[in-house]
Amino acid sequence: MVAAGLAVSIDAVGNIRGRRAGRESLPPVFLGSHLDTVPEGGNYDGSVGVLAALEIVRTLNDLNLVTKRPIDVVNFSAEESSRFGMATIGSKAMCGKIDLATLHRLKDQEGFSLYESLQANDFAPDNIQQAVLQPGDIHAFLELHIEQGPVLEQKNCPIGIVTSIAAPTRFKVTVEGRADHSGNTPMALRKDALAAAAELVLGVERIAKEVSKNTVATVGYLYVSPGAMNVIPGRVELGIDIRDISMENKDKASSAILDLIDMIAARREVVIRQEQLCDDVPVRLSGKIISTLVDAAETADINFIRMPSGAGHDAMNMATITDVGMIFIPSVGGISHNIDEYSRMEDICVGTDLLFDTAIRLAQE
Amino acid sequence: MVAAGLAVSIDAVGNIRGRRAGRESLPPVFLGSHLDTVPEGGNYDGSVGVLAALEIVRTLNDLNLVTKRPIDVVNFSAEESSRFGMATIGSKAMCGKIDLATLHRLKDQEGFSLYESLQANDFAPDNIQQAVLQPGDIHAFLELHIEQGPVLEQKNCPIGIVTSIAAPTRFKVTVEGRADHSGNTPMALRKDALAAAAELVLGVERIAKEVSKNTVATVGYLYVSPGAMNVIPGRVELGIDIRDISMENKDKASSAILDLIDMIAARREVVIRQEQLCDDVPVRLSGKIISTLVDAAETADINFIRMPSGAGHDAMNMATITDVGMIFIPSVGGISHNIDEYSRMEDICVGTDLLFDTAIRLAQE
Repeated sequence: MVAAGLAVSIDAVGNIRGRRAGRESLPPVFLGSHLDTVPEGGNYDGSVGVLAALEIVRTLNDLNLVTKRPIDVVNFSAEESSRFGMATIGSKAMCGKIDLATLHRLKDQEGFSLYESLQANDFAPDNIQQAVLQPGDIHAFLELHIEQGPVLEQKNCPIGIVTSIAAPTRFKVTVEGRADHSGNTPMALRKDALAAAAELVLGVERIAKEVSKNTVATVGYLYVSPGAMNVIPGRVELGIDIRDISMENKDKASSAILDLIDMIAARREVVIRQEQLCDDVPVRLSGKIISTLVDAAETADINFIRMPSGAGHDAMNMATITDVGMIFIPSVGGISHNIDEYSRMEDICVGTDLLFDTAIRLAQE
Repeated sequence: MVAAGLAVSIDAVGNIRGRRAGRESLPPVFLGSHLDTVPEGGNYDGSVGVLAALEIVRTLNDLNLVTKRPIDVVNFSAEESSRFGMATIGSKAMCGKIDLATLHRLKDQEGFSLYESLQANDFAPDNIQQAVLQPGDIHAFLELHIEQGPVLEQKNCPIGIVTSIAAPTRFKVTVEGRADHSGNTPMALRKDALAAAAELVLGVERIAKEVSKNTVATVGYLYVSPGAMNVIPGRVELGIDIRDISMENKDKASSAILDLIDMIAARREVVIRQEQLCDDVPVRLSGKIISTLVDAAETADINFIRMPSGAGHDAMNMATITDVGMIFIPSVGGISHNIDEYSRMEDICVGTDLLFDTAIRLAQE
């Protein structure tokens, strides 16, 4: 950003912004995504959008073009939920959706809080209010992102213009059984926390299939204690992630899962506690920006489809304070959150061209 | 041991022996158990037997009694399988049941081999052959141990004289699915390694119940990769521990579990690999020693029952080279391999009295 001549600022929760000045002192157009990733993740999720945004301002520099409005390249911090169980933390903070208490409450597996982590990285979490933007502060936000699913590849189409974003509902669940010797405890006298958790894992899978064809639900992590060959598991912790573009379907799935938890706990005589980590509302993106994207794509003769996003994105939060648009490019094999994640450079270039054309239109308004 | 005047020696795999000389230079009576424990384990499993053996020689010292045969207090190394997946490593080595290749092959979760661990602790694993005892080298072995189950407490009886020992059959299983984004991958297109593993966990539980009322089978540890809230699990590793005093029942359970693995792999289109870590043969203890224990208990008016052991013990290996007897004392609540493991001092004393009386009889033969 500095090499591209941008004026760089970093806010209280680590969001990075690099501003390219406009002719007039108007609310800027934001372009960007995130650079963080998941454990054993790939090289494209998030990074493509930040690098594409940077490429836009470098191209404007090369062309010696000054837009009417400023353009800000944005890297949102902590978009992935892997460490603290909550996603899109940077954009949530920017949109006033989390407070200081939440920074203290969210803890990683080692018990280290998000607040402590921000302090350890020289940010100023106590100033979280200074990170908040108000409606009107930004003219628009555009995010280019890999699809992270198989739809564009199946349709052999380089561009998805996103119409709505599914949002996660998440639970942290702990199962308390009783650790016992694996040799001397008859099957009938066991309180096996892992067997109870296994029923829940399969139930989460079954319920997602039953609710609707758009609903997905996942147990992504599961820890067993004490976790030894010859000890019946006494305690299990696991995370449940439910997504849909329909809030009603998410509610249905959540209720069914909570009922199942009660049933398993009663039948197996184990204690199961659950904490709802988030219950985000699915978002419809701006009709005005979708029209601008469609017009820019048609003008440049770029093939596209309109599609929903199953994954959450920072765009979801930004939609509460400004007009938001999202561009998807294909993920080869639909694979993401995996070291084999891959997007072809030709698709990245088509997406970046569309981002450029649309950004210019919005920055000239 | 040194304070009790014993001549201490440590063999190539860390087994500790402390000898109290006899009047004659005859094969000794071994008394002992193990001091290692499981993660988050209790204070009684193993330790009671080593301390009771030490108490026998201290009592003989106090009484100024010299037995005909030497008495060796023994602490077997690595009785628990928690770290290297194999149990009773010290007594196996003493009975010539593992070789140098096995020390290299067994690895802990960090990939550190048993061989490397022994070297790091200043033992001499290359001399493993020097640790081997032959039939005739020992006159008898007696082990006092907590029951680690609920039977003695339920029968309100302070002593179990063990007639046979169940032995474990163990598998390490890895499930390879495909890590994908939890939001953008429809349920029908997933290869969720944890959902496949959950079916196996429940199958192991069901099969143990079906085979016989004495059969137990446990998935004690399970690791999920990459293990994040928003990633479909791509890989799971877990351990299966099957026990019975009948080899036929263990074979039945193993076969059913391997069939289930094949079925899950085929139906879910995941790859499941399994490695058999051990397939130990259940052991009947010496009729002669059982008679001696029974006679000593009746002479001292100690209430007892005869019972099998569901858990494996070093006694199981020692039975291949000498006459072996085992004494169980009650575990409160049947709880073991748990920090709440507890045995009452009055029961420990009754068990130690019986160990004393029986040890003297054998050491005077």
